[in-house]
Amino acid sequence: MHALKVTRAENFPEWYQAVCREADLAENSPTRGSMIIKPWGMGMWELMVADLDRRIKETGHENCYFPLLIPMSFIAKEAEHVEGFAKEMAVVTHHRLKNVGGKLMPDPAAELEEPYIIRPTSETIIGDAMSRWIKSYRDLPLLLNQWANVMRWEMRTRLFLRTAEFLWQEGHTAHATREEAMEETLKILHDVYQRFVEDHLAMPVVPGEKPENERFPGAVATYSIEAMMQDGKALQAGTSHYLGTNFAEAQNIRYQDRDGNLTLAHTTSWGCTTRLIGAVVMTHGDDDGLRAPATIAPKQIVIVPMLRGKPEDAEIRDYCASLAGELSAQRAFGAPVRAFVDMKETRPADKRWDWVRRGAPIICEIGPRDAAGGQVTFMRREALREGDKIRSVTLSRAEFVARAPAFLQDGCETLRREADERLRSNIRADIGAWADLEAYFGAEDDETSFKGWARVGWARPTGAALAEVADRLKSLKLTIRNAPREQGAVSGKCIFTGRPAVENVLIARAY
Amino acid sequence: MHALKVTRAENFPEWYQAVCREADLAENSPTRGSMIIKPWGMGMWELMVADLDRRIKETGHENCYFPLLIPMSFIAKEAEHVEGFAKEMAVVTHHRLKNVGGKLMPDPAAELEEPYIIRPTSETIIGDAMSRWIKSYRDLPLLLNQWANVMRWEMRTRLFLRTAEFLWQEGHTAHATREEAMEETLKILHDVYQRFVEDHLAMPVVPGEKPENERFPGAVATYSIEAMMQDGKALQAGTSHYLGTNFAEAQNIRYQDRDGNLTLAHTTSWGCTTRLIGAVVMTHGDDDGLRAPATIAPKQIVIVPMLRGKPEDAEIRDYCASLAGELSAQRAFGAPVRAFVDMKETRPADKRWDWVRRGAPIICEIGPRDAAGGQVTFMRREALREGDKIRSVTLSRAEFVARAPAFLQDGCETLRREADERLRSNIRADIGAWADLEAYFGAEDDETSFKGWARVGWARPTGAALAEVADRLKSLKLTIRNAPREQGAVSGKCIFTGRPAVENVLIARAY
Repeated sequence: MHALKVTRAENFPEWYQAVCREADLAENSPTRGSMIIKPWGMGMWELMVADLDRRIKETGHENCYFPLLIPMSFIAKEAEHVEGFAKEMAVVTHHRLKNVGGKLMPDPAAELEEPYIIRPTSETIIGDAMSRWIKSYRDLPLLLNQWANVMRWEMRTRLFLRTAEFLWQEGHTAHATREEAMEETLKILHDVYQRFVEDHLAMPVVPGEKPENERFPGAVATYSIEAMMQDGKALQAGTSHYLGTNFAEAQNIRYQDRDGNLTLAHTTSWGCTTRLIGAVVMTHGDDDGLRAPATIAPKQIVIVPMLRGKPEDAEIRDYCASLAGELSAQRAFGAPVRAFVDMKETRPADKRWDWVRRGAPIICEIGPRDAAGGQVTFMRREALREGDKIRSVTLSRAEFVARAPAFLQDGCETLRREADERLRSNIRADIGAWADLEAYFGAEDDETSFKGWARVGWARPTGAALAEVADRLKSLKLTIRNAPREQGAVSGKCIFTGRPAVENVLIARAY
Repeated sequence: MHALKVTRAENFPEWYQAVCREADLAENSPTRGSMIIKPWGMGMWELMVADLDRRIKETGHENCYFPLLIPMSFIAKEAEHVEGFAKEMAVVTHHRLKNVGGKLMPDPAAELEEPYIIRPTSETIIGDAMSRWIKSYRDLPLLLNQWANVMRWEMRTRLFLRTAEFLWQEGHTAHATREEAMEETLKILHDVYQRFVEDHLAMPVVPGEKPENERFPGAVATYSIEAMMQDGKALQAGTSHYLGTNFAEAQNIRYQDRDGNLTLAHTTSWGCTTRLIGAVVMTHGDDDGLRAPATIAPKQIVIVPMLRGKPEDAEIRDYCASLAGELSAQRAFGAPVRAFVDMKETRPADKRWDWVRRGAPIICEIGPRDAAGGQVTFMRREALREGDKIRSVTLSRAEFVARAPAFLQDGCETLRREADERLRSNIRADIGAWADLEAYFGAEDDETSFKGWARVGWARPTGAALAEVADRLKSLKLTIRNAPREQGAVSGKCIFTGRPAVENVLIARAY
């Protein structure tokens, strides 16, 4: 018996929904396709933001804030961008409601001359500002970032993974040369995103370049980091784009170079979103719920007093409070330990399971014997069970307090090791022909069967030939995830065209 | 000659716009009424957010995130709320654009069945969630907060002070009893908002209750903290509302009490916004630009290397870098000192004045003599001038580094003292009759003449009598700001009605 009603093996998508609900991460809202992020989920996001923001600032970027609403005409400026984004987005057409016979409606007298769209991304409105702010080479590089909500009118939504509104950071930079812009694009990919996701979220990724047909609309090159979920599917955990001079041309971002010539800037953009919370669930969760890496657990050590409505309750309460105080004076991951006493008026057993499902890294259960004997009985969430039994350990209070930071650190390492092992052992490199791919991925079609990734050689077709490849892959519900930056040896034939392979690419089902 | 082209005395509103522009805080955007918050302004906001967020969390609140878009029907649920907010807001009516002959337009086939409005505030959508989340007294109090962007379609906008889109935090809480909800409302007012604004922004405020006609739409009682700007006008720096059971009734927020009865919850809401940045400008700025309190200055100590394209430049550069390193190892206000070397390729004199206008608390100018002699030459922004001369001081490097945290602290104290003195000495308590009020405020009408506040006794009229008072005040461009929580003695007659006064209120022109 596990703490969730459905296991990963039984039905992975249902299990995912169950974790989001039972771990109090988020829920659907009355606004179609938009979610409510609940405190435990939001707390995780805030800790992600703090760490990623630090990395973005350490690499020289500054935060700013641009308008939510973008004039419709701005979207039309970059030809591919309009094709890619003009489709599904929220359009603001009126600026007033009117009460007509007790019923509210948009006031026809308050129709906007030019509609606004709610930003799906901000290249156009930030590019417009760049064209005003950049005058000379002295103003370059311009390294901006913003934390914001964005909206894309998705038809089929899933909590965190695909929602109409989501939270993200979007970086936007302008540079004097192609080389500098490419260096930025890859610095974000490797030094910021990969390091953040692997080190802070304990989630191994493969960085690489997206094929032409998967590029950001308007980009010259798009890079991604791809993570493997427990059902084998890939999840794009961050993207970094080199935009060439496409947006600079569309929006007139020019600078006077050292020789006095007016020159087009090279721009980049890059983003990470709240879908990372979904990725954490699908990477580290188990059949008892979420296992939150201690780096992002809003409460790292939860103390449940085993109160029984008896006189010794007072002693237990005091003991828990002073234990929390001592733990908070310890440091883990460069910050004070986040310890919390759950004083809610519910049954201790219910609290235990609530915190197990939420994935608090350490859960202490303090009864009269612990309080009297100066000891701490606790569970570690990353290693909750021994066979069918819950693994509960008792240590002296002093030893527990001293070792708590190491427990938190070790817990993260365990999660990372499991995820590393999963990624390493589930990329098939033995698929040399289309028929092999078909045999592996076409065998059965139910969403619950585990399928890893395939690393295959290809001849990097473009245009119509690439579209045909994409269609064939689509018939197996597959996409090319990226061409890993670490290519290793490239040999054999392209599994699509039979021509000599020039590059390795990763193929997978994906979120 | 000052660093700005217009002084406060010449034209306060123009001076304000000049500071926002020259200090790189924000600018108007192509989106009507929405601003772009530039890195220096955003950096100040981030430091405000960090401090206020800590205070909000320390008082037991948890952050969450609710949808940007609110179904139109939600707004109609609370009768006064709809009157107060249904008027000017952005309405989303379509979810797709269509390319018609090369021109984009909202796709008529993608009209929404029910329009959405962009949240002007979130009582309705959060109340809806509360009605689902609260089942029993064990779920109370429910203490939520969110940091978000909101939108109110303002006709006349001014950077930070009144913009269509702004950033804020909005707290929303539910309680079992009136007493608990009132305690929360006042805790936020005094312990969170007043402490934050006075301690962190060095801006003294008067906390008090708004008169009935100035209440938040749907509230039973609205409290505010009011700050005095350098032109004497009042600025509402934060509000805290006790909503009674009005929203609970409209949205069915009920809980089972200890006796098993289904009971309406009492709710509160409270907010602070990016207008505080405007308040900081108008409280602490001078004719040379902003003076940022060191608590919220994104860079506290800016080091300008006086490079001259000569061989000794390298030595200066190294000296500046190691000085910044030493300063960063010092702590002020509980965090590492934020030191920065400005290596931009512009003239050192331009850099000095840029940082003066931005209000960096300490500006160091390091020339060859400083580098060679192990000394630091610096200005303190809160005391920039001695008569017409710039006050520049030289200390040994060791002494400067050791004393820098104290300089930052002292600078904040100076700003606070000046603002305290201004507030204390400009509230007139000698106005006992309407004619006096008229004589003081009606004398001249130009926006640039300084007018303080009046503290007068009144009989607390309600309904139509209060509306008449508000109208009379409006003819003098005045409003009642609040009835201070510290009432002192109440005596004499109501200046509006001649009846015995029952309460003191503050009257002022306001932003």
